[in-house]
Amino acid sequence: MKPSGPPNATSTASLRLHFRNGERLGPGKIELLEHLARERSISGAARAMGMAYRRAWLLVDDMNRMFAEPVVQTFPGRSQGAGAQLTAFGERLIALFRAAERRSADAVALQLQALDEALNPAPSAAQNRDADAG
Amino acid sequence: MKPSGPPNATSTASLRLHFRNGERLGPGKIELLEHLARERSISGAARAMGMAYRRAWLLVDDMNRMFAEPVVQTFPGRSQGAGAQLTAFGERLIALFRAAERRSADAVALQLQALDEALNPAPSAAQNRDADAG
Repeated sequence: MKPSGPPNATSTASLRLHFRNGERLGPGKIELLEHLARERSISGAARAMGMAYRRAWLLVDDMNRMFAEPVVQTFPGRSQGAGAQLTAFGERLIALFRAAERRSADAVALQLQALDEALNPAPSAAQNRDADAG
Repeated sequence: MKPSGPPNATSTASLRLHFRNGERLGPGKIELLEHLARERSISGAARAMGMAYRRAWLLVDDMNRMFAEPVVQTFPGRSQGAGAQLTAFGERLIALFRAAERRSADAVALQLQALDEALNPAPSAAQNRDADAG
């Protein structure tokens, strides 16, 4: 779940939570939940993220075991077309993570700007890789 | 450069910076620089992190191209034993990143605590994986 695609127009910070039980939660899983809320299925959310259905299913299963309450409720039927929706806790999880992310971004704005201004003005290897890939 | 080893005693947040030129900077690269400052060589820093020398060298090279100023200065001699030290900018880079990390951790403390309290009290799959691996 690495960020992919072209470089951003601006430099940004991202947040990852490392829980004491060894589980991790970052923007990729949260984005998957947001797509799931819109698509109302795991397969739809996977498609929207360009992710294999099995990987999306495993990530949802991981999140459903991570907390005392489930994050996603799936409806009967085992096909990939079966429906799914966020639980109330799932919605709270997204809200808490996105709030933390905004607060973190605000808190690090000055340091991020200082490093942004120190960037090499020459095209980077990462940009060249993207250009080659595109 | 995933976090590895046993689960932490407490839940924590980590920060990753995504620069507009497509480059990324997170705790793994910063930790490598901190080891390099102590060990005064790339090979020593790699060893201290349990990382292959080639991987450490590539990460240092990446950081040296990422900014207008180099982060690490290497001394003549191409052997793996050749010396290396942080530049003044390298020291500033570490200080800015660690300051941002502390500020981010402070900013997200309440949200992290709320999610920590919602964790599943049962042993997680991640813990079982660690137990198997250990």
